[in-house]
Amino acid sequence: MRIFRPGLVLALTFFAFTAAAVDEPAPLRGYSAAAARAERDWETRFRAIPDTRNLHDYMQRLSARPHHVGSAYDKDNAEWILARFRSWGLDAKIESFDVLFPTPRERAVELLRPARFVARLQEPAVAVDPTSSQQTEQLPTYNAYSRDGDVTGRLVYVNYGVPEDYEQLDRLGISVKGAIVIARYGASWRGIKPKVAAEHGAIGCLIYSDPKEDGYSQGEVFPKGPYRPPDGVQRGSVMDMPVYPGDPLTPGVGATPGATRLKLEEAKTITRIPVLPISYADAQPLLAALSGPVAPAPWRGALPITYHVGPGPAEVHLKVKSNWDIRRLYNVIFTIPGSTYPDEWIIRGNHHDAWVNGADDPVSGANVLMEEARGLAELLKQGWKPKRTIVYCVWDGEEEGLLGSTEWAEEHAEDLRRHAAVYINSDANSRGFLSMSGSHTLEKFMNGVARDITDPEKNISVWKRLQAHEIAEASNKQEVRNRSDLRLGALGSGSDYTAFLDHLGVASLNLSYGGEDGGGIYHSIYDDFYWYTHFDDTTFVYGRALAQTIGTAVLRLSDAEVLPYEFNDFSETVGRYVQEIEKLARDRRQQALDRNRQIDDGVFTAIADPQRTYVPPQRQPVPPFLNFAPLENGLAALTRTAERYEKALSRAAADGGSALARASLREINAKLVETERMLTLPDGLPGRPWFKHQIYAPGFYTGYGVKTIPAVREAIEQNQWKEAEEQIVRVGKVLENIGETIDAAAGGLENAANRP
Amino acid sequence: MRIFRPGLVLALTFFAFTAAAVDEPAPLRGYSAAAARAERDWETRFRAIPDTRNLHDYMQRLSARPHHVGSAYDKDNAEWILARFRSWGLDAKIESFDVLFPTPRERAVELLRPARFVARLQEPAVAVDPTSSQQTEQLPTYNAYSRDGDVTGRLVYVNYGVPEDYEQLDRLGISVKGAIVIARYGASWRGIKPKVAAEHGAIGCLIYSDPKEDGYSQGEVFPKGPYRPPDGVQRGSVMDMPVYPGDPLTPGVGATPGATRLKLEEAKTITRIPVLPISYADAQPLLAALSGPVAPAPWRGALPITYHVGPGPAEVHLKVKSNWDIRRLYNVIFTIPGSTYPDEWIIRGNHHDAWVNGADDPVSGANVLMEEARGLAELLKQGWKPKRTIVYCVWDGEEEGLLGSTEWAEEHAEDLRRHAAVYINSDANSRGFLSMSGSHTLEKFMNGVARDITDPEKNISVWKRLQAHEIAEASNKQEVRNRSDLRLGALGSGSDYTAFLDHLGVASLNLSYGGEDGGGIYHSIYDDFYWYTHFDDTTFVYGRALAQTIGTAVLRLSDAEVLPYEFNDFSETVGRYVQEIEKLARDRRQQALDRNRQIDDGVFTAIADPQRTYVPPQRQPVPPFLNFAPLENGLAALTRTAERYEKALSRAAADGGSALARASLREINAKLVETERMLTLPDGLPGRPWFKHQIYAPGFYTGYGVKTIPAVREAIEQNQWKEAEEQIVRVGKVLENIGETIDAAAGGLENAANRP
Repeated sequence: MRIFRPGLVLALTFFAFTAAAVDEPAPLRGYSAAAARAERDWETRFRAIPDTRNLHDYMQRLSARPHHVGSAYDKDNAEWILARFRSWGLDAKIESFDVLFPTPRERAVELLRPARFVARLQEPAVAVDPTSSQQTEQLPTYNAYSRDGDVTGRLVYVNYGVPEDYEQLDRLGISVKGAIVIARYGASWRGIKPKVAAEHGAIGCLIYSDPKEDGYSQGEVFPKGPYRPPDGVQRGSVMDMPVYPGDPLTPGVGATPGATRLKLEEAKTITRIPVLPISYADAQPLLAALSGPVAPAPWRGALPITYHVGPGPAEVHLKVKSNWDIRRLYNVIFTIPGSTYPDEWIIRGNHHDAWVNGADDPVSGANVLMEEARGLAELLKQGWKPKRTIVYCVWDGEEEGLLGSTEWAEEHAEDLRRHAAVYINSDANSRGFLSMSGSHTLEKFMNGVARDITDPEKNISVWKRLQAHEIAEASNKQEVRNRSDLRLGALGSGSDYTAFLDHLGVASLNLSYGGEDGGGIYHSIYDDFYWYTHFDDTTFVYGRALAQTIGTAVLRLSDAEVLPYEFNDFSETVGRYVQEIEKLARDRRQQALDRNRQIDDGVFTAIADPQRTYVPPQRQPVPPFLNFAPLENGLAALTRTAERYEKALSRAAADGGSALARASLREINAKLVETERMLTLPDGLPGRPWFKHQIYAPGFYTGYGVKTIPAVREAIEQNQWKEAEEQIVRVGKVLENIGETIDAAAGGLENAANRP
Repeated sequence: MRIFRPGLVLALTFFAFTAAAVDEPAPLRGYSAAAARAERDWETRFRAIPDTRNLHDYMQRLSARPHHVGSAYDKDNAEWILARFRSWGLDAKIESFDVLFPTPRERAVELLRPARFVARLQEPAVAVDPTSSQQTEQLPTYNAYSRDGDVTGRLVYVNYGVPEDYEQLDRLGISVKGAIVIARYGASWRGIKPKVAAEHGAIGCLIYSDPKEDGYSQGEVFPKGPYRPPDGVQRGSVMDMPVYPGDPLTPGVGATPGATRLKLEEAKTITRIPVLPISYADAQPLLAALSGPVAPAPWRGALPITYHVGPGPAEVHLKVKSNWDIRRLYNVIFTIPGSTYPDEWIIRGNHHDAWVNGADDPVSGANVLMEEARGLAELLKQGWKPKRTIVYCVWDGEEEGLLGSTEWAEEHAEDLRRHAAVYINSDANSRGFLSMSGSHTLEKFMNGVARDITDPEKNISVWKRLQAHEIAEASNKQEVRNRSDLRLGALGSGSDYTAFLDHLGVASLNLSYGGEDGGGIYHSIYDDFYWYTHFDDTTFVYGRALAQTIGTAVLRLSDAEVLPYEFNDFSETVGRYVQEIEKLARDRRQQALDRNRQIDDGVFTAIADPQRTYVPPQRQPVPPFLNFAPLENGLAALTRTAERYEKALSRAAADGGSALARASLREINAKLVETERMLTLPDGLPGRPWFKHQIYAPGFYTGYGVKTIPAVREAIEQNQWKEAEEQIVRVGKVLENIGETIDAAAGGLENAANRP
């Protein structure tokens, strides 16, 4: 495949007569010229292998029956995947853990007054969809790790149930104390909703899918279209994952048979109040029975009712009782030992378990991983010998709380801290644009890979297409046009990279395609083979593209002489985060000043409608100015070393990379692997020591949503000014420390270049 | 009434021992100290008069039966108002005009396929609401001045039906040629929708009220709450009023019995295609029968369906036939001759006709006008003698196209151009904050009035409450806090000030209270006494506040020695408009450049989903840089004279205003009256000569929505670059001309101050 690059065209204009100039491929970061030629050849061979027919067949097999963790078909799938890997000649095994996994025994949602209504809590089978009728094997609609409870109370509608929504309720003079709240899905990860509700005194929580975000307002509903039908329910975990993911009973250690386990009542990540998810068909009678203030305009969904906040008169009975069993999960793992640097591991994962049939989530990613595995096996047969060790992982128990990946990462923490260079994750895959998130030390690397993959719908690279998309969306189009790299998104949580990145400090990527197809079958029985092959990447061409993308990345990482981390993009990105946080502090100060001024001037009282309850906000302490110098100094040190490293690598790669042959690559690579580890601190983030990374974390009050430089940012958001200043010092030191490690790697390269 | 003012408190701190300092009221613009004392006394007496019981009773009487123009009760109301005025001793009369007023004879909306559905086109009576059952007198649901038509075609949903919506349809590859469009109310005045649809080749137009903007999404529907019920319909005129309002057959002249009339087919303001308004109950089956692309997210309303754009498969039959009758309308007018300046007129108006019972629109304003009239009559009996002539007008035929006010203004154009100083309008009134729009030469005056009116719900002035509201809403709160005057909104169209301001150049104000009560009965049978007394200003205290506000304004204008125009606020406001327009030109240039760049780079093609129709935009000519210097120079001249005038008036008002006694006030006032006239040009705006004002006009493609400096702004918006440059020159000259007139007034005041 030829990729159009303006620079290359220019070169051709002048050197068209030298055949070498025409055939010479673009250099590869971390490769000598000769190694790059060989590498490009292997990569081209690899990309020819993935086959859409296989992706189709794997999906059909894996999603044929419900396969949640602990189910018969979950184990069956793991064994089938193991057998496939072995049949391709790969050294695969199953690694099991025994984890707490509650499944519902009793569930009830009833409206007691002003009228009686019993929620159905059941997704009906659809005639055209063969697997939707497998009721005996389907997990009921529920939120895993909801505590048991049997509560009755007045209902209050809390919009998305995020902290700002409760501020709005305060203005309306409405308390949820002793009430059952009903929140809609969206705006935060679902586990945040019961957590914040409990903090405000609620005794129960319902979460429903509003058709505005997830139903007919988006498009025709299943089976006529891909969107959520009236009785469709989003299952999901409500474990307090921002505290720690994985088995609630074994935080920080692998849930092996002999592991020390907490008692159930000691587990911090189980909700404080009972929670159930419901469909919009079940939610409508409850919401319609509310009175009280009309919901603020942004709170209104697409149901054909007037949305009121309550409280009451609707009174609701909510009951949840689970079997709190320990169940076995089955991770499937294979390893390809490295030929040159066996102690540097490139790890790749995708989960295989689903809430029900899970054709989209996760099989549309798991089938891609399998097809990559088959491709690697093919290359091995053709004589390919990766320099680094490659570890492929098909995780179990992701849906409940990243169980399989977290327990495995905790169990192998010591080895992983020593050896893991990069973790590449995928999950559900769709049709459209490449989505790239991850560690910004891999930003330039990942851009290079994306330039080499052809979009299956357009005769251009997926990089070019993504750039076009970002130009079209951007407010500052010139910035996108002029920057050599497209930006990686920062990783929060929500898939299996979490333990690697956040707990262990392993540079990570999360990759997928999407943006052209929508749908509303997430975590429902309708996420199945029928749905996927009618409404998503129906020809599996984007599944193939993802296998080509990730396979290329795995090859390029495992064969490089110097691991292709890059620190200029990283330091520039951290600089943006620092600026954001400084602006956040300034804005919060200004907002507090301004709000206090309005309170003092009687503005809120003057504008309040006396016919409506309105509680003016209270005066707030004005945030002080913070000393950001330690962060700025740390950033300056990082920026300087990033530039030094880049110069050193350029020099080492000059003249076809002759200096690389002289370099102590083992030591340099070891330093490079260490860099991401330097971004962690052993005692982690304030109040949640499991999360050790100081640049990325899922937000304590957003869940999946990322908070960058989280210790500082969240302290500011929560008005913890003293803590913010302390964390600024800690993070500043972290930036200095990674700078020192980068310096060491740069020194290694410089030495090689200086030697004759 | 005492108004809290920080400055006054400061004064009290130092001078509390001098009784004079305590009792001396704030000076009044255009008044000597002695005259101000007398004036404040009359105003205080006036404000004690308006009585909520009377407002209640007038409303009950006027809205007791349907009273559209041409109906029996419309004439009956006019005669009853006339009798009231005369009973109070006022010199009142009826002035009639004979106007074209179509009423429907046949109406049909039918879905022919894919299923058959016949629209009801009828608002049902509601048991608790006594007047809702007066069906024999109610006008059917229709859009007046829709041409007759009987068409069948495929349906296309066009969102609000404004020009940008058709650009979006172009991108989707959808044409409305030969189709019937269905647009929702909102985003533009209704008459724009059939106009733009016809420009794009549609053969018919339906307009419906979506529950998102006007129905259950806003709040509980009538009769449980104030919002539009499923079968409620918004009647309304679709006359092309941005071309000219008033009788379509007599543009520019009064529709007297002997006036020369156009033939019906010559009238430019009748729609080119048939139009009918429908309820959301009638719209839902039509919208649900559409397929084609799912409507873009901002196009989706609150009906429980997936909104598609079409075209078809829905096929619709639309039929409208009207009786095209000439009907008589009845304006009620009284005059109080001025004692000192009888040739300077202060005019005040509100219409009395309604679409049906119209308790809110217009009776909640008409009753206020009546109570003001009673108050003025009381003062006259007590010996008050206004210096200027006061003319009170109760208009007929406003709803159909400002018929009564336009014909009267056209008939009396010569006198009005000579004598009219200020026109003050009101229309429907509600509960909440003062709403002030109008000529910015009256901004400072109106702020002064608002400071003297007490809000009936809060113990503060309506000015203070409005300021609090604007501080709360503003992005730049300091600007609102620091500016001595709250800004007047600019006037577009939609009520009876239009002929005065836009055609004749009479400085105008439009005033009301609102913002605390919502509702969805606009132009329906449910806008009636039951609704208003259950859901709006139920105790009529804001009706009383409006009578106090406008009555105070009328007194203060009619008694002033120097008319209280002010030109600094005006020139500052025009300066803002000039900046807006320069930014508009820059932005449009940048947008065109950027879009062309994206087209050249293939961005639109690269991001398009091949499974969906997408038509990339065409390359556009890049707008040139424009020469704004003539506008800037005109503005500079205006600004200079505004400052000169302000200094001159301050000097004349010094020492209790002794210089005023020596001034040639008649000449100075005549110059001041002339200023707003200087803002008009005899040949009006490009393509619509009836609209002569060069600062304010209803937008050609927005309808009621204002376009400031319209000739320049609309030329830029429509890419008429040559025309834009020509209009910049014309408007620049207009600003110079008003500057010269202000200079003359300033000179008169300076002469008086310089004389001993």
